[in-house]
Amino acid sequence: MVRIDVNCDMGESFGNWSMGRDEEVMPYVTSANIAGGYHAGDPHVMRETVALAAEHDVGIGVHPGLPDKMGFGRRTMDATPRELREYVVYQLGALSAFAEANGSSIQHVKPHGAMYSMLSESREHARAVMEGILEVDPDLIYLATDMNIYEVAEEIEGLRCVFEGYVDLTYRADRSLIVEREKRGLDPELVADRFVNIALEGRVEAANGETIDVPADSICIHGDTPNAVEILETIHDRIEAYDVELAPLSTIV
Amino acid sequence: MVRIDVNCDMGESFGNWSMGRDEEVMPYVTSANIAGGYHAGDPHVMRETVALAAEHDVGIGVHPGLPDKMGFGRRTMDATPRELREYVVYQLGALSAFAEANGSSIQHVKPHGAMYSMLSESREHARAVMEGILEVDPDLIYLATDMNIYEVAEEIEGLRCVFEGYVDLTYRADRSLIVEREKRGLDPELVADRFVNIALEGRVEAANGETIDVPADSICIHGDTPNAVEILETIHDRIEAYDVELAPLSTIV
Amino acid sequence: MVRIDVNCDMGESFGNWSMGRDEEVMPYVTSANIAGGYHAGDPHVMRETVALAAEHDVGIGVHPGLPDKMGFGRRTMDATPRELREYVVYQLGALSAFAEANGSSIQHVKPHGAMYSMLSESREHARAVMEGILEVDPDLIYLATDMNIYEVAEEIEGLRCVFEGYVDLTYRADRSLIVEREKRGLDPELVADRFVNIALEGRVEAANGETIDVPADSICIHGDTPNAVEILETIHDRIEAYDVELAPLSTIV
Amino acid sequence: MVRIDVNCDMGESFGNWSMGRDEEVMPYVTSANIAGGYHAGDPHVMRETVALAAEHDVGIGVHPGLPDKMGFGRRTMDATPRELREYVVYQLGALSAFAEANGSSIQHVKPHGAMYSMLSESREHARAVMEGILEVDPDLIYLATDMNIYEVAEEIEGLRCVFEGYVDLTYRADRSLIVEREKRGLDPELVADRFVNIALEGRVEAANGETIDVPADSICIHGDTPNAVEILETIHDRIEAYDVELAPLSTIV
Repeated sequence: MVRIDVNCDMGESFGNWSMGRDEEVMPYVTSANIAGGYHAGDPHVMRETVALAAEHDVGIGVHPGLPDKMGFGRRTMDATPRELREYVVYQLGALSAFAEANGSSIQHVKPHGAMYSMLSESREHARAVMEGILEVDPDLIYLATDMNIYEVAEEIEGLRCVFEGYVDLTYRADRSLIVEREKRGLDPELVADRFVNIALEGRVEAANGETIDVPADSICIHGDTPNAVEILETIHDRIEAYDVELAPLSTIV
Repeated sequence: MVRIDVNCDMGESFGNWSMGRDEEVMPYVTSANIAGGYHAGDPHVMRETVALAAEHDVGIGVHPGLPDKMGFGRRTMDATPRELREYVVYQLGALSAFAEANGSSIQHVKPHGAMYSMLSESREHARAVMEGILEVDPDLIYLATDMNIYEVAEEIEGLRCVFEGYVDLTYRADRSLIVEREKRGLDPELVADRFVNIALEGRVEAANGETIDVPADSICIHGDTPNAVEILETIHDRIEAYDVELAPLSTIV
Repeated sequence: MVRIDVNCDMGESFGNWSMGRDEEVMPYVTSANIAGGYHAGDPHVMRETVALAAEHDVGIGVHPGLPDKMGFGRRTMDATPRELREYVVYQLGALSAFAEANGSSIQHVKPHGAMYSMLSESREHARAVMEGILEVDPDLIYLATDMNIYEVAEEIEGLRCVFEGYVDLTYRADRSLIVEREKRGLDPELVADRFVNIALEGRVEAANGETIDVPADSICIHGDTPNAVEILETIHDRIEAYDVELAPLSTIV
Repeated sequence: MVRIDVNCDMGESFGNWSMGRDEEVMPYVTSANIAGGYHAGDPHVMRETVALAAEHDVGIGVHPGLPDKMGFGRRTMDATPRELREYVVYQLGALSAFAEANGSSIQHVKPHGAMYSMLSESREHARAVMEGILEVDPDLIYLATDMNIYEVAEEIEGLRCVFEGYVDLTYRADRSLIVEREKRGLDPELVADRFVNIALEGRVEAANGETIDVPADSICIHGDTPNAVEILETIHDRIEAYDVELAPLSTIV
């Protein structure tokens, strides 16, 4: 049997402003990346999202971002490796306290938006963040969004890392992702095909028709795709026909 | 022998703005109340202050404040008990991660400024915060600034609480404190007298000459008093003549 | 003929988070209260909302709030009269620059949420804010949400003030408003009745059936009422039968 | 007679944190660059700094920064031209209101830190900001810190621009500036020599001994140089021997 994780960004509401459909999506995923209050989220949203995840036995991860709410953490900034590490440790700790208060704990870390890009572009930044995570808790899993990051993580002694794949975006042949400006509904059957292909064979069809390797143990689903719930339902239905089981990261690594 | 703790607010710099003389004061105290990034502090300041405290074997505490940097957390706001609890849990967790990364842990919680006042004025708010602390870590010590708060803490099953006294401020006969608008230098000998009186007898002379009970196991020293270091040195010298030892909260409770 | 203004809160989105239906509602109102970046809004939202208002010949007003995005400016805080005045001047100026860049100017000021409550409860705070507004621009109109505030404004020499009424909330006999916890759809015909009654007679029926005086020259419509657009359309239709014209505040005072 | 302006960054305190020695420095300068609340400053600091400048007949300018208080606006970020323009307009407007309330007005704009660098590196960003300034008030003067920026400003029809020079930093032969990591005291006589050389001849000696053109009509003095006041006094003394007069930007352009 193959086990694979489904992760999704959550807890990105802020104060009176809501975002996402966490309650609808949570029952279908196995790991939640919860914003830590820098690019999105706040103590109330964090507490509620942790409770929602725990209720559905979903692995709790922190989704740390840059201190830029106005830009939703999507603008790279000239921060040092040490600064990024400090921002991750801060948000990781804050979410941990809500997890502990809930009788749970943090499973993983997945940096958000521009912070993720900065780590992908600078090994020095990536190492600093990963070493910071290890210092806080050696059991944490780093969820790596691209192969660059995965390779850096492999070099950090003691750090557990999982490589994630995408099925609601299309890969180019070089394993980069085509990001559309507008979120639009996707064909759930196509997405479920990709899901099963990655889960069973670690391969998926790229935009040019070529089959490429995507050796992922976790699949990221975007909760803000208009038909995200339908996509998730289709994936759940599809895998019943195969020997694939959805399970949180912590049970896979 | 009598053991008593000396605590001081620390880590209240922010970004490029510095505040306090943490490096000068740290060698003389036994517990540090470190800002959590809401009224003051930031991830960098928190990491550095935790490291400084650990280096001097000073007990690490979080000094959570209201989300009001512009007002330095000194303006009460109409926040609910649940909101205050969430703000404390968030900041407690964030500081904990820096402590853990440093091989240490959090010893205590002491709310800052207007948050402290709000807890003192509403038992419902105080209970919510204290229960939140217990949920995160039952070993944490609540450092109570007034008897009201101490009494609420005594009612919370499982919560360890220490009552603190002041020697660089003058008490009124009703055990309220006279807060001067301007910080000015104080007579170190007078302050040391009060320190010893509270440590040995749990009593101190109030403004009207009356002797009042201040059953404190910790003394708060304000690091921003102009001659704070001289005061601390005088206290250290003075207690050598008595059987008084300075020790962090965790060794006292 | 009777002229009356219809005002609505606008520009309360922030960064990636959207709120309200400004584009749908703007065509039906004559004055817009635009958030100034403290409780909501940001420079981008302000520029866009000013442009939208100008396009529809809607009077541009600033809707200044407390510096509390996490609480959406709805929590009173222990700020001084001088602090409130400074917060209003800051936000007023910021919005003015966007108005000037658009070839327009600011018509009015209407404080938001908890700031409005604080002004209503303290004449000293209200005077400070009103004097601050006058200092910046003596042509600005103060839009007063209750009679207390209106009376203070009347005492400030040189300040133009308009009293506003509500038709999508129900008055008590003492002219206080019944605020429901949940926004729900309202009967547009009832709301239009109230609108015409206030416009023509300055009177409206309170919850207990009594008819009370509401001598308003502007009516506030809540854009977040689920059927706000339908309500506004019904009001527009209804007043055609009467000699009532909708017009911005500046043409009424 | 030669007229030249002396400008200095001011108003960079925030809430309870103070920075700079504005009161000591203000009597010696002719133009003040006042922070707008993004990288530093707040409504209270802005009001006080505007009043202090007006009291000394110092030209009031806005010193807009990136929305990054934690990094003091010193970290470039991947913001669009439109975003920078919006941030400048917002802060310009906010400061204008305090100037108007004081019976004064804004004379000039000088971007701060990383925002200045971003404008220097991208003509598109520079044009967007300059056009934004012109839209708000065509009388504003743009204070250009390097020749790149000055050249872009020259192309913007209707925009008045002044090029500034530095005397408390040393130029390289290519007119770039050597920025030392630590601020340290400088020889006031050397600084005064440079001042007079730039004022009278538009030339100054670079680090390699070469004499280079610095055709500046304003000289920036850093208020945080340890002996800034002594430097300013020496400059004031020195120019008495020459036919040089200090005067705000608005009287020079």
